[in-house]
Amino acid sequence: MNGQSADPRVKFLLEKLVDHIHDYARETQLTSEEWMVGLRFLTKCGQMCTDIRQEFILLSDVLGLSALVDALNNPKPPTATESTVLGPFHTDDAPDVANGESIASPGKGEKCLVIATVKDIDGKPIEGAKIDVWETDGNGHYDVEYDERDRPDMRGCLTSNKNGEFYFKCVRPVSYTVPTDGPVGELLKNLDRHSFRPAHIHFRINVPGDKYSELITTLFLRGDPHLTTDAVFGVKRSLIVDLGRIEDGSIAKKYDADEQDWLIKWDFVMTTIDEANALKKNLERKNDTL
Amino acid sequence: MNGQSADPRVKFLLEKLVDHIHDYARETQLTSEEWMVGLRFLTKCGQMCTDIRQEFILLSDVLGLSALVDALNNPKPPTATESTVLGPFHTDDAPDVANGESIASPGKGEKCLVIATVKDIDGKPIEGAKIDVWETDGNGHYDVEYDERDRPDMRGCLTSNKNGEFYFKCVRPVSYTVPTDGPVGELLKNLDRHSFRPAHIHFRINVPGDKYSELITTLFLRGDPHLTTDAVFGVKRSLIVDLGRIEDGSIAKKYDADEQDWLIKWDFVMTTIDEANALKKNLERKNDTL
Repeated sequence: MNGQSADPRVKFLLEKLVDHIHDYARETQLTSEEWMVGLRFLTKCGQMCTDIRQEFILLSDVLGLSALVDALNNPKPPTATESTVLGPFHTDDAPDVANGESIASPGKGEKCLVIATVKDIDGKPIEGAKIDVWETDGNGHYDVEYDERDRPDMRGCLTSNKNGEFYFKCVRPVSYTVPTDGPVGELLKNLDRHSFRPAHIHFRINVPGDKYSELITTLFLRGDPHLTTDAVFGVKRSLIVDLGRIEDGSIAKKYDADEQDWLIKWDFVMTTIDEANALKKNLERKNDTL
Repeated sequence: MNGQSADPRVKFLLEKLVDHIHDYARETQLTSEEWMVGLRFLTKCGQMCTDIRQEFILLSDVLGLSALVDALNNPKPPTATESTVLGPFHTDDAPDVANGESIASPGKGEKCLVIATVKDIDGKPIEGAKIDVWETDGNGHYDVEYDERDRPDMRGCLTSNKNGEFYFKCVRPVSYTVPTDGPVGELLKNLDRHSFRPAHIHFRINVPGDKYSELITTLFLRGDPHLTTDAVFGVKRSLIVDLGRIEDGSIAKKYDADEQDWLIKWDFVMTTIDEANALKKNLERKNDTL
């Protein structure tokens, strides 16, 4: 019934959608009551959404769809940093933060220093990369989860220096629950699933120009009890980082930190758009021959 | 990852859902941008919903899901009246209307008389059936589509008399477009699909007690140009009714109508719960052996 002048991709996407939702209804012998419960659930999700709350991203996250879409769209060479889900808490208002500054206002949690680099797969430093960072406070809450948020906190935009380095202070990430006060929280409860994400920091890295693909990724802390049961299926083994105390006095001094502060060190390895496109073509070819 | 203490049906429904949405993403090689467009679309649908506007039912309708769920849940014996989709315009506030009265306030369209009966499959009249009726005005709009709706109109709840009869005045139904001012209207446009429903009147019939299944159905006017391309896939051949003028002076007099008014005559044949359950079991058995 779709018309001739519709965009072929839109028609294809909708026809496949209809196939799958009809198959789903038949396979499950979906009852009228269940159908209505489903529609009411979707309605509640939409009505929960605001500028700073996206219940449908959360739904996609807890169903593993976000992780799958990320995997389909962001194949990486073996030595490059893997991507993972954006999550529902990125905002566009993070302030610019100079290297060495803190992205968190004082008293938000245990102090942590992050020292990182941005490089290409040959190990060459990338200068001028824009790094958008966000995390929860020490109580496991993003700034947007507080009613009285008047400005961004635990967020910052950094720029890599000529050695590809960027470094900033933040708070030691903690494991936390995804928002459970909405319909998705209710769903997790009905499925007898926990709502925890293991402790992590989000990074979104863009290199100006058109050489590199955007990298949306997350570093997870080794040893977190929720690493293997992340509520949103975002953990990848290659993205687990060791957390220790700075200890080394010379580092503490160089970065104006305390020896007892936590330290995370990481090298982000960017993928070029050409490399990404070549990998995507390979993936598509593989899928075509299945 | 779903827990042991979750309701098995809820787990099953969600596991199948995950299977299908993941298959969908893989089969379509869904891009991150398309995924985000989809989430924004769902968000807009939710935000469009109010007490009297249900954009997700409309979405389910235009994707043919409502018609399928209806078919799965309401199998009917060959001689019983078929069911069809409820649609998004039913409300719970229709006033009681005595037989012979009009469900529409004056001036809402061309006058039409409906004379109907409620019977069982053996032709025995059913007394005391509650019949909820709703339709658009002569401009193709339901009362809830007007901003200034202060009370229900073109809606009424009737009761069948001891002969199983009910009769009322209304306006001649006209074909109309489903609401196109929301995301679903936008979707239809993008798919180059029209948004018309053929002229019809909705009926929801319940017989007090626990003998009969609820019947949700619609009568469509023969000759309507949109009968074969209903935007919500609700038309069934057995539900198409002839529309003519009353002409017969004795009928006009008996029902206090004009000979020039339109006339619709119909017998609604109810299915018992036992009959419906037996048919459902048969359907499930058929599906199990597929």
